[in-house]
Amino acid sequence: MNWKTVAKVLGKTLIAEAAVLVLPIIVAAIYGEATYWGFLLPIFALLLLSVPTFFIRSRENEDKNIYAKEGFAIVAFAWLLMSLIGALPFVITKAIPHYLDALFETISGFTTTGASVLSDVESLPRSILFWRSFTNWIGGMGVLVFVLAVLPKNNAGIMHAFRAEATGPNVGKLTSKMGHTARILYGIYIALTLLEMVFLLAGKMPVFDSITTALANAGTGGFSVRNNSIGSYGSLYIEIVVTVFMFLFSVNFNLYFLILTGHVVKALKNEEARVFFITVVAAIFIVAFNVYLSAVTAIDNFGTALRYSSFQVLSLSSTTGFSSIDYNAWPTLSKVIFLLLMVFGGMAGSTAGGIKMSRMIILSKSTAADIRKMVHPREIVTVKMEGEPVSQQTIGNVRIYFVTWVAILIFCCLLISIEDFGDFMTNFSASLSCIGNIGPGFNLVGPAANFSGYSYFSKVILSLEMLFGRLEIFPLIVLFSPATYRK
Amino acid sequence: MNWKTVAKVLGKTLIAEAAVLVLPIIVAAIYGEATYWGFLLPIFALLLLSVPTFFIRSRENEDKNIYAKEGFAIVAFAWLLMSLIGALPFVITKAIPHYLDALFETISGFTTTGASVLSDVESLPRSILFWRSFTNWIGGMGVLVFVLAVLPKNNAGIMHAFRAEATGPNVGKLTSKMGHTARILYGIYIALTLLEMVFLLAGKMPVFDSITTALANAGTGGFSVRNNSIGSYGSLYIEIVVTVFMFLFSVNFNLYFLILTGHVVKALKNEEARVFFITVVAAIFIVAFNVYLSAVTAIDNFGTALRYSSFQVLSLSSTTGFSSIDYNAWPTLSKVIFLLLMVFGGMAGSTAGGIKMSRMIILSKSTAADIRKMVHPREIVTVKMEGEPVSQQTIGNVRIYFVTWVAILIFCCLLISIEDFGDFMTNFSASLSCIGNIGPGFNLVGPAANFSGYSYFSKVILSLEMLFGRLEIFPLIVLFSPATYRK
Repeated sequence: MNWKTVAKVLGKTLIAEAAVLVLPIIVAAIYGEATYWGFLLPIFALLLLSVPTFFIRSRENEDKNIYAKEGFAIVAFAWLLMSLIGALPFVITKAIPHYLDALFETISGFTTTGASVLSDVESLPRSILFWRSFTNWIGGMGVLVFVLAVLPKNNAGIMHAFRAEATGPNVGKLTSKMGHTARILYGIYIALTLLEMVFLLAGKMPVFDSITTALANAGTGGFSVRNNSIGSYGSLYIEIVVTVFMFLFSVNFNLYFLILTGHVVKALKNEEARVFFITVVAAIFIVAFNVYLSAVTAIDNFGTALRYSSFQVLSLSSTTGFSSIDYNAWPTLSKVIFLLLMVFGGMAGSTAGGIKMSRMIILSKSTAADIRKMVHPREIVTVKMEGEPVSQQTIGNVRIYFVTWVAILIFCCLLISIEDFGDFMTNFSASLSCIGNIGPGFNLVGPAANFSGYSYFSKVILSLEMLFGRLEIFPLIVLFSPATYRK
Repeated sequence: MNWKTVAKVLGKTLIAEAAVLVLPIIVAAIYGEATYWGFLLPIFALLLLSVPTFFIRSRENEDKNIYAKEGFAIVAFAWLLMSLIGALPFVITKAIPHYLDALFETISGFTTTGASVLSDVESLPRSILFWRSFTNWIGGMGVLVFVLAVLPKNNAGIMHAFRAEATGPNVGKLTSKMGHTARILYGIYIALTLLEMVFLLAGKMPVFDSITTALANAGTGGFSVRNNSIGSYGSLYIEIVVTVFMFLFSVNFNLYFLILTGHVVKALKNEEARVFFITVVAAIFIVAFNVYLSAVTAIDNFGTALRYSSFQVLSLSSTTGFSSIDYNAWPTLSKVIFLLLMVFGGMAGSTAGGIKMSRMIILSKSTAADIRKMVHPREIVTVKMEGEPVSQQTIGNVRIYFVTWVAILIFCCLLISIEDFGDFMTNFSASLSCIGNIGPGFNLVGPAANFSGYSYFSKVILSLEMLFGRLEIFPLIVLFSPATYRK
């Protein structure tokens, strides 16, 4: 492991966090809140930690490159440090007095999970609420992509760090230079976020709410500044805007790049996008009919059923986790569909969580092909994705990812069941919600509840699970592997 | 597909079923029950169906061999036909008036699931109860193994049919001749069943109960002749006997063969057996402590906790499904452990269901190895099982099996959720219980309840799922694949 290079990139990441912590101070100034120290102290801490890394000098003949292992380590340490310090504003301002609660909330923010320990967010200072929503936004695109975008020189190996932070089975560069790719991605991200703010403002949503909602939505995080989430506004228009943007932010950003560069047809032909779209539309209609026909709910108007089902299907499949109604009271079929959407997640290369649609497609296709081979041993079956054959290496990686993901999901469900807090549905959905970076679950962690009932032990487990989900497992395995620290 | 050979073997299987249907007639005679026709009519039907197959003549140059595809087809058709006709006694005697209910009960019997639609078994004729428990026994070792054991001549290809019916990732022959292997397996099976009967009789269990309990236990089916299952007897001795035999019947029968032929050390060194044993013991103690310490249950004596936990852990990990207490009221941790044990199942080559311990070991080891390779690309990592390297082919098959198994589990859970009967825990555990061939689940299908509340649509889905689980998926895929019937 090339620790010097790792430390150098980490130093820059900490500076980046210090820079963004200036924003909530501006918010505090605007609303006249006395929360300055809550953000200034962490800024000092970040600068103090990063200064030594600028004095690291490599010897002449030293390998300064970043390989897969360094990429994983950088990402794992960066996210852990960012969260450990990003939690301080909550503690210092006493918005969340206990540090482990604040850490849970911060990791939930950065990983774009949106699971909360807070029951009354409306009583909190606006600067704190802004920071909370802003963590969703930073985590969505990734802090390292941001660092790459602003880094002056290009290290060829930095691709590994980028790959370790980006989501999905295959991460491609849009242009020959990494820095350029990162700047394009952030450009699209900022533009879409601003667009949503404008649309929300047009629907008479208060300015502060529009900004924070757009930030939390862009990252598919789902932290809201209202106790009843998007349902608080009681506005069909706002629900439609949020629903559409929840869809837009679960789309692979490479497709927006294709559209911007005039390859609209190529973008529309994208297989993952089509499968995601069909899945979402099918889910919306099945859930709407289920809610409309079932005697379990009081909804007996198909239009109303469609309104709530569209919002909830997009909220969970984009892994945002906003809510417009307490779907915990909905019939079992809808709940099973929701759980499946939570597992699938959005598209690779988006800000959404879950296993990702492209992995699910490769998993299904390769399994179908292998079953075919088993029954007809002499037939030659190839797995194709986006018209190209998928390598055995990629299929293998997707399968390992799936098995490991399920193993972590179950193991954490087991660990948080040690205490007698939740029933199986609560604990299973909490664990799924955290590894899938969704936010709410069912029953005691349903949309009308929160995670504050869990013990600190369980909260730490769930926090780690959120990091495992957002960083797609392998960086954290490197972090916890003793081999990383040997020699 | 060589249909002539398939039909010939099927004919012999139907004759075998007709032969075993004589046994409940003897039971009816002993207890003076007027249920003769319930068994005679199915016997006539079986003979009528099998007669034409004896007149099938192959042409001189025809390929009479059984390949993988024929093996899968034979097993799938045999089990389906056996169940379709084996359900008739229940309908004719009006023990279960609706045919689809009777089919559910019969498939549940043959697949050694033990899920029931009956709430009051104590009111049924003894000949019917005997047939019900006997289906568990037949299904445990498999009807084709029985046909092989009594078949005079040896077709080398019959191995494929044997392999398709046996459980686990690798099926080996014990001796050079298939018929010999089949006879040895049945010999061990009969001996162990008789041994359990003797032990139960020694505990003053009524003769009829001892016979039926031993039959249902041997197949790890779990059909009981008492409404409260083994809990009805209120006897610690009987619970211990049943617990021990539930363990013995989840052990790979090849190990008994090794012990009988003097290779005791080799048998004790078996990796799968050690992992299974450690898992079971660990689960017993964790569940016992959980039940003892938790405020959810009234059990405040560690001895009592250990008594119930041992029984329940063995019942679920052997996939028998007997119960001695309503564990549905136990804390969440115990339930999550139970669900995991239900997924793992027993050892390959036993009568137990689930994914099988050997597959879980290969899955874990190969995933760990692949993660290692990902982090340290230059390292050479080999996966070993029972001291031998595991081929990439086997690892691939195990992964396909796992993914397909999970997919069927979830898909069936979705289908049975179309109706508003069960909550998520009910439907998920029902689906798991059926594909894992366990029997009871949780909540509305818990140990104190049964499957009668589901609609016929759901019962058909769950019946198919039981067959998928018992026949380990691929035979039924061949059965439902249109390609099988082409040309």
